[in-house]
Amino acid sequence: MEGNNLIRNERNSSNILKNIKMTQLLLIILILTSLSISYLAYSSLNNMAILNNDMNILHQNIENLNKNEIQSMVNEANRLYENARKLFTGISTAVIIILAVLTFILIKLLKDSMAQINDVLTKLSDYDFTVELQEDGKNEFAQMNRSLYIVIKNMKEALAQIKDRSEEVTGQSQTLAAVSEEMSA
Amino acid sequence: MEGNNLIRNERNSSNILKNIKMTQLLLIILILTSLSISYLAYSSLNNMAILNNDMNILHQNIENLNKNEIQSMVNEANRLYENARKLFTGISTAVIIILAVLTFILIKLLKDSMAQINDVLTKLSDYDFTVELQEDGKNEFAQMNRSLYIVIKNMKEALAQIKDRSEEVTGQSQTLAAVSEEMSA
Repeated sequence: MEGNNLIRNERNSSNILKNIKMTQLLLIILILTSLSISYLAYSSLNNMAILNNDMNILHQNIENLNKNEIQSMVNEANRLYENARKLFTGISTAVIIILAVLTFILIKLLKDSMAQINDVLTKLSDYDFTVELQEDGKNEFAQMNRSLYIVIKNMKEALAQIKDRSEEVTGQSQTLAAVSEEMSA
Repeated sequence: MEGNNLIRNERNSSNILKNIKMTQLLLIILILTSLSISYLAYSSLNNMAILNNDMNILHQNIENLNKNEIQSMVNEANRLYENARKLFTGISTAVIIILAVLTFILIKLLKDSMAQINDVLTKLSDYDFTVELQEDGKNEFAQMNRSLYIVIKNMKEALAQIKDRSEEVTGQSQTLAAVSEEMSA
């Protein structure tokens, strides 16, 4: 009973992963990557355009602008750069960490599922039908496990039927053998 | 013969995909993404730092710099911005396209392999052992196909043995039945 509960708990914890469709996760990774690369490129070009524009204005209107205006423009530019520095460092670090975590979840899912299926297939090739399959979950491998479960169930039933029939035939021939022995006696 | 060649050609063309390990492809995607995000963030901050620094120099040394020096600094800044605009747009577009292609290759690999395995398992659950498996290739599914191939081969052999034995037993009981009939006649 305790063993069963343990297995069930272990299954529940890995269920979160089993409900993630790998194809969907891949699309999420792609969208997240594209958005962050686009944002970084767009935002940095935008900021550079502002700085560049300020510099041109500063250069062209140096005689017309008063000291305070120039000072506020330069302060604004410094603030812009500081903000961008924090934002870009934060965003790129966060995105890379998130992508790494998602990728390793995907790799773990793939490897674990493959290891489980290969384990089942190895047992089956040794005529061991006592294998257990995790059929719960919604991901691609859970669907495959359910198909494999039906195959194993059908094989078990077929073998059981064959066993029954062969026992029947063996029983019949034993009866026949007994009868013929009796008659020849 | 022609049909066989056709099948073989079709297999060779899909072999390129079958030799790609999905886990390796995922790591390649992660590294490519991380490098491009890091590059974009680093390079844009670097460029912004140069522009910002130029602006501060321009502002602080406006009396000491001559017109030509100021003009060349502004030209340099404009060139820097133009280059960054082309480079960032090009790199982010190229990286997003490459990542999209890699992701869709991965999704296609996953879906095709899953569809093939599910097809085989559906046939097996209908006791149809005439399934064909693509055992070539180096990816995770090709390894699984090879394991599944051994299972199917063993099942076929086991069923053939059972059939032989049951025919033997049936033959023996028929002989016994004939003998007992003859004796009782």
